[in-house]
Amino acid sequence: FIQQSLDGVNPADITELLEEFDADDSKYVLELLDPQVGARVIIELEDDLQSRFMGNFTSEETAVYIDNLDSDDGVGVLNLLPISKREEVIALVENEEKAGHLLDLLRYEDDVAGGLMGKELIKANHNWTIQRCIEEIRKQAENVQKIYSVYVVDDNTKLIGKVSLKKIILSEDNARIADIYDDEVISVETYVQEEEVAQIMRKYDLEALPVVNVRGKLVGRITIDDVLDVITEQAEEDIQMMSGISSDVEEDDSVWIISKARLPWLVIGLVGGLLGAKFISLFEAQIAIIPAMAFFIPLITATGGNVGIQSSTIIVQGLANSSAFSDSVFRRLIKMLMVALVNGTILAIIVFGIVIFTTSDQTIAITVSSALFSVVLLASFMGTITPLILHRFGVNPAIASGPFITTANDLLGLAVYFFVANQLYGL
Amino acid sequence: FIQQSLDGVNPADITELLEEFDADDSKYVLELLDPQVGARVIIELEDDLQSRFMGNFTSEETAVYIDNLDSDDGVGVLNLLPISKREEVIALVENEEKAGHLLDLLRYEDDVAGGLMGKELIKANHNWTIQRCIEEIRKQAENVQKIYSVYVVDDNTKLIGKVSLKKIILSEDNARIADIYDDEVISVETYVQEEEVAQIMRKYDLEALPVVNVRGKLVGRITIDDVLDVITEQAEEDIQMMSGISSDVEEDDSVWIISKARLPWLVIGLVGGLLGAKFISLFEAQIAIIPAMAFFIPLITATGGNVGIQSSTIIVQGLANSSAFSDSVFRRLIKMLMVALVNGTILAIIVFGIVIFTTSDQTIAITVSSALFSVVLLASFMGTITPLILHRFGVNPAIASGPFITTANDLLGLAVYFFVANQLYGL
Ligand SMILES: [Mg+2]
Ligand SMILES: [Mg+2]
Ligand SMILES: [Mg+2]
Ligand SMILES: [Mg+2]
Ligand SMILES: [Mg+2]
Ligand SMILES: [Mg+2]
Ligand SMILES: [Mg+2]
Ligand SMILES: [Mg+2]
Ligand SMILES: [Mg+2]
Ligand SMILES: [Mg+2]
Ligand SMILES: [Mg+2]
Ligand SMILES: [Mg+2]
Ligand SMILES: [Mg+2]
Repeated sequence: FIQQSLDGVNPADITELLEEFDADDSKYVLELLDPQVGARVIIELEDDLQSRFMGNFTSEETAVYIDNLDSDDGVGVLNLLPISKREEVIALVENEEKAGHLLDLLRYEDDVAGGLMGKELIKANHNWTIQRCIEEIRKQAENVQKIYSVYVVDDNTKLIGKVSLKKIILSEDNARIADIYDDEVISVETYVQEEEVAQIMRKYDLEALPVVNVRGKLVGRITIDDVLDVITEQAEEDIQMMSGISSDVEEDDSVWIISKARLPWLVIGLVGGLLGAKFISLFEAQIAIIPAMAFFIPLITATGGNVGIQSSTIIVQGLANSSAFSDSVFRRLIKMLMVALVNGTILAIIVFGIVIFTTSDQTIAITVSSALFSVVLLASFMGTITPLILHRFGVNPAIASGPFITTANDLLGLAVYFFVANQLYGL
Repeated sequence: FIQQSLDGVNPADITELLEEFDADDSKYVLELLDPQVGARVIIELEDDLQSRFMGNFTSEETAVYIDNLDSDDGVGVLNLLPISKREEVIALVENEEKAGHLLDLLRYEDDVAGGLMGKELIKANHNWTIQRCIEEIRKQAENVQKIYSVYVVDDNTKLIGKVSLKKIILSEDNARIADIYDDEVISVETYVQEEEVAQIMRKYDLEALPVVNVRGKLVGRITIDDVLDVITEQAEEDIQMMSGISSDVEEDDSVWIISKARLPWLVIGLVGGLLGAKFISLFEAQIAIIPAMAFFIPLITATGGNVGIQSSTIIVQGLANSSAFSDSVFRRLIKMLMVALVNGTILAIIVFGIVIFTTSDQTIAITVSSALFSVVLLASFMGTITPLILHRFGVNPAIASGPFITTANDLLGLAVYFFVANQLYGL
């Protein structure tokens, strides 16, 4: 019955269904499916569910599924298995060409072009005719699900161009590839970072991108569907990083997993808060005399946090979109400083006006507004320089847009506030 | 000279170059280019630059560029022109079919499927032979740059299936479309939101998605490159929204534009801070007696902010990925409450330990840790319910992940802290 009702349903829809099942039921359903469909269902699962599912399968069963997958997806499944099991599974893969592809792909990190590419593609020698090329397509029809373009190589399998399927359809059968191919083909080398791959495919509107090795030989092809997944996951991760969630969690993960992912930054924030408390306590005597000093603590820390996060976000996005013409660190700092001067002045004037109007206490008004002005400047500086420094050291600068900047700016804000108060009150 | 050196350069690369030029120089360069290349350069520009550039062109010049663009890109350019000028430009477009397409597409909002689709596609009647289909491709070759699939329609142009180019290449010329087409074709109606379009194309790994009207007739096609742009811009906007930047700005916008985009949320934060100050001032007498109460203000507000943002981020991402099986509001709240109980307890214990160890003041330790515990619970509740409510009312819930939650939680935290202190100290 299940088998019948799932007949003709898209694998991605079956996956959504399985995500609601437990591992045993899922295995039962998967075994009812054609292995080709089952394989596609498995790779659509989220990584953590996928590892859990694969734990239920023997090496033989795993090998059958991998045999039914494109090499890039196959290696994705292999990467979730314990290292010891990987070679065992590859040895059990029936299709020897596929097994070779998998061994080849296992060598690459999964966040570079080599780790994103599949080996399935159609390549044609520049001396071939269209007829010969169509024969090759027929031979590979089962292996290469989506063709997009045929890649043209020279006698050393060096990539020299491409021919679109449209052109193949419209050309005479005896036309030579050499006469019709497009020699402006964009490619990447295997070690290019996935972020750059995504940027290139987006910029040039590509649905497939050939990958070459350092000697220019065609070794694989990246397809847009996999890059779309990379982009979506990357965006989700960046937002989680900004929110102080320290590992990739979804709403449907367990309470314990979510709690654990959230705790580290909360504890760091807590330590920041305790340091802040220690700092304020140095001014215990002054607060006892002028409690009004305590009133504006949240105002100062909140503004510092907001300004810092705004600055770092603009810098992080600027870094992500940076072209060859991007600004120098110095010019960036100057610009952010000018923005801070504008906003700091406006905010300081508003606060001065409101405080003087409501309390008529000139010293407090001057203290709060000048502290606020200084905090806006300093927090902008921090928010600008931190991601630039992290970027320079190869760390994802998005980490600086979250609780790190907030915590740092809370402390900075307190220091500035009490320093200014100290000066003005002459305490 | 410029003309020569730009010969053969990809339009997207010329665009990057032009972004560094002023409007006059850019116009000069564009006029040197073939209008087909120039048109592609223009649509790769960012929206605000594009409007500025187009302001320099007459309606006649604009019409020539639009004539050289796919209808979806053409309508994108039209949408940046003042409404009065749009019909004037369309009337000047030479290709009458294109002009009709543009008038048709102008009717759609730009954030739904109808606004994303282009009219350029190859459709084949199910009674045609492959031969006839290839003739149609030949006829349309110039209009439809990338084909992907041929869409199969019945005699009423109702979409009933698709045939991949691969299949067309491998089929006999006299084969009938009806015998070889794939009737499992995924399509969307014109009013579907762009976010849903992106989700569908990602889920089913599509590079093109046919669009039908309410009566199932094929009216257009969305291609993955345009959806990729939507996704990237959406992710950038969400992150800016979380950072309290109120309109789409880039690092290279002017100081004034950046300042203006950042000011609104800073002012709202400021008002929150002033309300907080007012609130704390109600406890002026108590602070004068026990200044230690002031020490922990930043700890409480910072933790509230961090917890609130974490919760809202998980909910916002959950909403974005929600399937038919997504949880009810009630189950979501219960789960977030459990997470808050776990983390609140751990944080409260840590703070209690550290405060008692460093100050040996039991009342302060109990006050701070129980206030912290309550703040974690309340901030989690706020962070969970706010995006759910916004989502219910059709507002982008990402807006709740930023300074709004922080500001609200600062006030909430202060209220809880002083309420608890009041109870425990019996002030
Ligand atoms: Mg990386
Ligand atoms: Mg593009
Ligand atoms: Mg793939
Ligand atoms: Mg994939
Ligand atoms: Mg995720
Ligand atoms: Mg997970
Ligand atoms: Mg929308
Ligand atoms: Mg996919
Ligand atoms: Mg387009
Ligand atoms: Mg486009
Ligand atoms: Mg933008
Ligand atoms: Mg802009
Ligand atoms: Mg804060």
